Amino acid sequence: MTEAVQTRPGGRSARVRAAVHRAVGDLLATESPEALTIPAVAARAGVHPTTVYRRWGSVAQLLADVATSRFSGDIVVPDSGTLAGDLERWMSDVATDLTDPDVLALMRATIGSGPEGGCACTVDRHDQLRAIIDRERARGGKVPDLERAIDTLLGPLYYRAIFSDQPASSAWARGLVATLLATM
Amino acid sequence: MTEAVQTRPGGRSARVRAAVHRAVGDLLATESPEALTIPAVAARAGVHPTTVYRRWGSVAQLLADVATSRFSGDIVVPDSGTLAGDLERWMSDVATDLTDPDVLALMRATIGSGPEGGCACTVDRHDQLRAIIDRERARGGKVPDLERAIDTLLGPLYYRAIFSDQPASSAWARGLVATLLATM
Repeated sequence: MTEAVQTRPGGRSARVRAAVHRAVGDLLATESPEALTIPAVAARAGVHPTTVYRRWGSVAQLLADVATSRFSGDIVVPDSGTLAGDLERWMSDVATDLTDPDVLALMRATIGSGPEGGCACTVDRHDQLRAIIDRERARGGKVPDLERAIDTLLGPLYYRAIFSDQPASSAWARGLVATLLATM
Repeated sequence: MTEAVQTRPGGRSARVRAAVHRAVGDLLATESPEALTIPAVAARAGVHPTTVYRRWGSVAQLLADVATSRFSGDIVVPDSGTLAGDLERWMSDVATDLTDPDVLALMRATIGSGPEGGCACTVDRHDQLRAIIDRERARGGKVPDLERAIDTLLGPLYYRAIFSDQPASSAWARGLVATLLATM
């Protein structure tokens, strides 16, 4: 560590955050969820447990921070020129993201530790879906209600990822888009 | 404790299981999910931690046992005479069950600690939906595909319970049934 880095608290703070986030990901990928404790995260990140307690307070808050960071801005809202094209591309990207075991492990852990009502892992998905619908409205096209789109598209997709052993293929996800557009 | 009870291992075993299950429910209702450890469960149930480790092995397996017990046979498959009537009654019962904070806490904890692919909290729901569809088929009626029914009915319902802050009202749940029947 150089002296220049040591004297920049922002730089050190960002490095600690990155190391702690990485430690959470590593532990979720390799250990049982019960092993995710603040002392274990601190040991793996090479920082003092007090640093983690002071900054995040609890495993639940730490997981929420990791999830917000992981699930924000990770998927670009497509602009294919049509509502059907945008929704199909976006659903395919979200479905592909949910096939990553590390993503699923983080999502399951965040659900398990979070409070009721909402999850940091889907806030950005709702914003992206709203952006797709708003763009079609700006084009002058007919649009579905946002809540109905969430129910019809994200409901089955996340249900399959979390509660069912059925695969969520791209073809199946495109079928959900067809159902939404046919019934709006 | 009477001597007759003490000499019946089955009776004692069932009592230990009930006490441990109750302790899990109490801890989930009153503490943060991080507090759900085997020593804490054992202390609350008034049994030795070794008893819990030996019988359930881990928090994940204990939670799966509690969830299987809680979510099995709790909702009766209705028999109203029509597919629409059966599905509406059943969806209303499932939606009502999901408004119970204790049910949500158990479900979230089970998701967080379980392996990928499937959850003890929905296995019985799939069996119930299959039974409703099979009965309509026996009546000679037209029926939806089971996977499509799971996607259309349970997907949005569980998504709202876990990922969204939108309420899952009975009227809204009946709307999902109408969508399924209109598009099958």
